[in-house]
Amino acid sequence: MTDAVPVSRFGHVELEDMPDDLRARVGAIAEKSGFVPNVFRALARRPAELRAFLDYHDALMDSDDGLSKAERELVVVATSGANHCTYCIVAHGAILRVRTKDPEIADRVASNPWAVELSRRERAIVDLALLIATDSAALTEAELDDARAAGLTDEEIWDVGAITALFAMSNRLAHLTALRPNPEFYLMGRLPRT
Amino acid sequence: MTDAVPVSRFGHVELEDMPDDLRARVGAIAEKSGFVPNVFRALARRPAELRAFLDYHDALMDSDDGLSKAERELVVVATSGANHCTYCIVAHGAILRVRTKDPEIADRVASNPWAVELSRRERAIVDLALLIATDSAALTEAELDDARAAGLTDEEIWDVGAITALFAMSNRLAHLTALRPNPEFYLMGRLPRT
Amino acid sequence: MTDAVPVSRFGHVELEDMPDDLRARVGAIAEKSGFVPNVFRALARRPAELRAFLDYHDALMDSDDGLSKAERELVVVATSGANHCTYCIVAHGAILRVRTKDPEIADRVASNPWAVELSRRERAIVDLALLIATDSAALTEAELDDARAAGLTDEEIWDVGAITALFAMSNRLAHLTALRPNPEFYLMGRLPRT
Amino acid sequence: MTDAVPVSRFGHVELEDMPDDLRARVGAIAEKSGFVPNVFRALARRPAELRAFLDYHDALMDSDDGLSKAERELVVVATSGANHCTYCIVAHGAILRVRTKDPEIADRVASNPWAVELSRRERAIVDLALLIATDSAALTEAELDDARAAGLTDEEIWDVGAITALFAMSNRLAHLTALRPNPEFYLMGRLPRT
Amino acid sequence: MTDAVPVSRFGHVELEDMPDDLRARVGAIAEKSGFVPNVFRALARRPAELRAFLDYHDALMDSDDGLSKAERELVVVATSGANHCTYCIVAHGAILRVRTKDPEIADRVASNPWAVELSRRERAIVDLALLIATDSAALTEAELDDARAAGLTDEEIWDVGAITALFAMSNRLAHLTALRPNPEFYLMGRLPRT
Amino acid sequence: MTDAVPVSRFGHVELEDMPDDLRARVGAIAEKSGFVPNVFRALARRPAELRAFLDYHDALMDSDDGLSKAERELVVVATSGANHCTYCIVAHGAILRVRTKDPEIADRVASNPWAVELSRRERAIVDLALLIATDSAALTEAELDDARAAGLTDEEIWDVGAITALFAMSNRLAHLTALRPNPEFYLMGRLPRT
Repeated sequence: MTDAVPVSRFGHVELEDMPDDLRARVGAIAEKSGFVPNVFRALARRPAELRAFLDYHDALMDSDDGLSKAERELVVVATSGANHCTYCIVAHGAILRVRTKDPEIADRVASNPWAVELSRRERAIVDLALLIATDSAALTEAELDDARAAGLTDEEIWDVGAITALFAMSNRLAHLTALRPNPEFYLMGRLPRT
Repeated sequence: MTDAVPVSRFGHVELEDMPDDLRARVGAIAEKSGFVPNVFRALARRPAELRAFLDYHDALMDSDDGLSKAERELVVVATSGANHCTYCIVAHGAILRVRTKDPEIADRVASNPWAVELSRRERAIVDLALLIATDSAALTEAELDDARAAGLTDEEIWDVGAITALFAMSNRLAHLTALRPNPEFYLMGRLPRT
Repeated sequence: MTDAVPVSRFGHVELEDMPDDLRARVGAIAEKSGFVPNVFRALARRPAELRAFLDYHDALMDSDDGLSKAERELVVVATSGANHCTYCIVAHGAILRVRTKDPEIADRVASNPWAVELSRRERAIVDLALLIATDSAALTEAELDDARAAGLTDEEIWDVGAITALFAMSNRLAHLTALRPNPEFYLMGRLPRT
Repeated sequence: MTDAVPVSRFGHVELEDMPDDLRARVGAIAEKSGFVPNVFRALARRPAELRAFLDYHDALMDSDDGLSKAERELVVVATSGANHCTYCIVAHGAILRVRTKDPEIADRVASNPWAVELSRRERAIVDLALLIATDSAALTEAELDDARAAGLTDEEIWDVGAITALFAMSNRLAHLTALRPNPEFYLMGRLPRT
Repeated sequence: MTDAVPVSRFGHVELEDMPDDLRARVGAIAEKSGFVPNVFRALARRPAELRAFLDYHDALMDSDDGLSKAERELVVVATSGANHCTYCIVAHGAILRVRTKDPEIADRVASNPWAVELSRRERAIVDLALLIATDSAALTEAELDDARAAGLTDEEIWDVGAITALFAMSNRLAHLTALRPNPEFYLMGRLPRT
Repeated sequence: MTDAVPVSRFGHVELEDMPDDLRARVGAIAEKSGFVPNVFRALARRPAELRAFLDYHDALMDSDDGLSKAERELVVVATSGANHCTYCIVAHGAILRVRTKDPEIADRVASNPWAVELSRRERAIVDLALLIATDSAALTEAELDDARAAGLTDEEIWDVGAITALFAMSNRLAHLTALRPNPEFYLMGRLPRT
């Protein structure tokens, strides 16, 4: 299968051409989604980097300890919005809609994470993520105390910070490769399940 | 061994308390350096994240294909300078001094990566890294063409971009944890070997 | 009809409560869209201002002289993306999808207007709009000459500048009122017409 | 009458060449001022846009309900200063001097609206205007509550926001057209009336 | 003589209370101007600092070698505009009007130094000054070459840079002390000499 | 004695070629340091400017009234870090290490003055310096009151502001001249005295 529009400016690797371990791993994701997310096809040009990327991603995004999965996606969409990363906004916006069953939340968070109306806990999560995404050198104990005052534990603060850091990387990789979102993401989670 | 000043605001794990695989891996680094770099002690609170971090780091920093090892450290010091990350400036500044045998280069690059005098190839590497570090959404084919005109291959451009992205993450993890450089790093590479 | 979530933080006026001329005018729009766009309900609290707003909007957006209607919406979505205006991104993103029959263009332009891949003419239009939206004091004849070199006439340059200026105003009114997009906009133009 | 220096980079229309309604309307302003403000000569190239501009302007600037006329001009001069708009600073600075009978206030507000010494009410007005002028996406209920605590009603807050939004547009139109202030404005309100 | 409005937030010293050498020196300036510029009354609290300030100022501003005196004031007004320094804009704007016999130039340069229409030589001077005023770390040989191409000698480039640097200091001292311009400055050079 | 790498892009003057008074003055400094700091060799091309520079520097840096000498150097290193001035970071970093006998403080303050851990008094000093260095137009009585609440007197506040202002100038002069730190500075204060 080929694309009319390139997946990445540096080319990509189809699922069937990936090394065995990556084909198994990415294949499992593709089976669940119904398609191979382009980020994996683009990063597969460097298998060792893709393996580390998948490991990091799984360690931070596939857990319900502390932050819920929806809250983790909220961090991703807010920081990707602040970083103007089309791929991550579109792809993780889709996942956020699916996780929250709210068809509007992703567009609202991505377009204006600073003022979108959120619960107090969500606002504390997003404020911390935005600071770390855009001006992490200014982070002091005072901002962590604000997060704690809104009920976040130190493990949850780590989650917010580490997910923001991971997507500081992912957003830049997407910009480096001019990564194109799969067409399927645009519509996911916008229609009532039938 | 304990520190008077905390390694990280969230605590840390000593080498002997790490899981076996990490103890082996970090131990090997410590043997070479003569001490355990604090980043590993701080991140070891989350072993799965540290494993992915080490894998990513090795995939990008322990290679001589394309960018030389000194050029890879140049990218790290320039972007960590732009991001105001004390840990990465001090630790990777030390490595850059060692790799280049130049006792001044790290302080000069970290303090002002925009105007420090460099060779044309180094300037192209640093300019690309700075754009991706600070405004990656603005990256277009035109800037890649500038890098190509200075002699960088597409694989080298990927290296620059991916290392910058990795340290966009590392710098933020260091700020999140208020990570403190080991005292040993400050002096490394400043004195003539005897 | 009422909303569970407020249309605007300062309240709003339903169509049937508007002065006759506005009810007629906004009613005509509502008939075409199938709903009353919230911007008109929010601004109707000040009828004289809404009349001027509608007049300005019609003068600039309902014309095919020079810029096409799709190009006019492109200016709106790009500048609203740069200004992080949720209402205008969602509402005019919908119109842009309808005008271009492209279900992806709006999300791509709004999330990253700086690097989204466009034709040379579209890129010139968007670059000029972004400069006027974010740093208009820096506009000199040189930037207009760039736009002319890409084929824009002076009338088209005026269109780009004036539409950007109008949405500099609209985006701020939306932020002032915490204006909420109608739910209908989110899905418009995303599905193939049946 | 012609100018040695162009009124606008896109040319202009003299009063006698304007459509009847605009000639009457702008003529009335000219009679009061003693000259035709250049903004009207420049915008008259597009009569429909000038009509909407005049309507919007009158709706917001020619009222004493809520904000006083001097306070409305204070908003204009502060935001035009933040936006570096020469025409609006010079022209509305003149009006602010006339309205306040203070020959210094306009230069002080335009050059540094952030720290100029003002009454508490004026400071609240200017702070709100500056936020909406330069970073409206960050406006939340907290900043409106600050304005309310300084005594502003919600109608006055709307006035501040809407005037700021209108001049976000005007400032950009002035930059688009390289609009030149009439020489008369520079001296208006600087000398004691004789 | 006292002021209703304070000269400086830290108090000031009247001419007659200054040490002999400063009284002579500032007195000579006052005789020429017709009043004691407030900057000297404010800085006289620290005589050694005022002496150095006067020496620096004289070395750079009282020379016609290279840059003309009007061009030196152009640098001051442009950089003070970029730095939003009310005192320096008002006081040196007055001197610029006097030196150029142009009643409009100061307000136009101070309000928008980036786009104000200037001769090629003046534009090169102002562009260099603005870069050094706002982002001097980014200055490289390329920008100096641009200035040279517009006809500036290296001595003139030093003048532009050193004057910009001096007013980087002066502007900050004025902000530190909340320095108030003397009322006389506002009108100087605006009226034809009689 | 000559340098392989230029001291300054505009050339320099050796100690023995300076006018008598400067040779005496700079010679005394050189005797204490063991070398002639490059800033004096570069600025000596303009003796009147160098004299004023030395006077200003002595008035502000050679005093123990109010701020201690170490605190004065802390202001210099923090603002030079924020301004990305290699020369001042390296040279005054050395002096700060010597004054504090702390081999780490300079690198930590210069790389991230916003979040480096400091005493409450030091934090107040650095915060005030950073505001004046990077956004002095925004300084109001509120920020001075914060400094006073941390125990600073008005004379100490003046010291912080004036030193920051002086190095706003020095940093720009260093960038103008591409001033190179003497090799000796890099190692000063890093080793225990023997």
